[in-house]
Amino acid sequence: MEMNYCSNCGQPLFHGMPPGDDRERYFCKSCGYVAYQNPRMVVGALPEYDGRILMCRRAIEPCYGLWTLPAGYLENGESVTAGAVRETREEACADIANLTAYALFSIPHISQIYLIFRAELSGNAFASGAESLEVRLFRPDEIPWDRLAFRAIAATLRCYESDLAAGEFKFHVGEIGQPDSKGGGAS
Amino acid sequence: MEMNYCSNCGQPLFHGMPPGDDRERYFCKSCGYVAYQNPRMVVGALPEYDGRILMCRRAIEPCYGLWTLPAGYLENGESVTAGAVRETREEACADIANLTAYALFSIPHISQIYLIFRAELSGNAFASGAESLEVRLFRPDEIPWDRLAFRAIAATLRCYESDLAAGEFKFHVGEIGQPDSKGGGAS
Repeated sequence: MEMNYCSNCGQPLFHGMPPGDDRERYFCKSCGYVAYQNPRMVVGALPEYDGRILMCRRAIEPCYGLWTLPAGYLENGESVTAGAVRETREEACADIANLTAYALFSIPHISQIYLIFRAELSGNAFASGAESLEVRLFRPDEIPWDRLAFRAIAATLRCYESDLAAGEFKFHVGEIGQPDSKGGGAS
Repeated sequence: MEMNYCSNCGQPLFHGMPPGDDRERYFCKSCGYVAYQNPRMVVGALPEYDGRILMCRRAIEPCYGLWTLPAGYLENGESVTAGAVRETREEACADIANLTAYALFSIPHISQIYLIFRAELSGNAFASGAESLEVRLFRPDEIPWDRLAFRAIAATLRCYESDLAAGEFKFHVGEIGQPDSKGGGAS
């Protein structure tokens, strides 16, 4: 499903090197339209409250029933912080404040870039949004490591655990490799 | 130009709220395909060599003839660091090493997210790539402030100038507003 027809003129798309380009793309020989495809950003938050962090159990696929941080695709017209605030509201019915960029993970094989902010959970108010079965606060030693939804989220939480032990939070940049590769490093 | 026909089945696209969604998108009533549109990431580098930084004068529109840092759209299948390395090679024929995430600017009104890394220019080797008229090293006090190509680049360079004066480089997150708004703040 997807790149069959030109979204501009409706003619069949061609896959190959567009004139003047240096990589293969889908493009239209009829009207010249190039269907550029670029990585999508997933923005989210690690909301903290009283030494605990807020997590959501997914009510949707993929990863139904597994735990994650509130996060989702950045939308057109949004800043990265506005996207993280919106996702936290949608999935955990919670407001966050004082966002600090915390972890940026590239996942080249699925063309996604995760950006997670540390943030303060405003008050102790949260509830399950439409896409969550359950939302709750976890002490760091309670994180459900064997029931986490996404590798970028697991990697972010590992950074958090390690920074917590070290007593200093820094900004992390890393990459998640193919599921069968070693990958997953962050600095 | 763009969202007229379904890229999956070729039928006319409809603009409105797709079933189960909460915002208007282009979608196909015939096959159900939703043409999600998301912000694009621009990745680039601020390459340093011997107290100077490498900049490129653009040989293409927009902003033909103005100065910028090597940067461009992140491609599918790339990590953010790989994208910054590739763009520096393409535009300045230069290799960089030891990349450190430096500035992240959201530009909501054009749905772009800029991520610029500080990096070491490997050796003192550079030249004009196909998209550059000229590439050269600038001392911080030589930055051509009145001939800069993009506001996110100008904002990044202002962070740099300020950090340099303060003697400490930190990671900056900011937003660029509409051209006629105040915007452009970074923390």
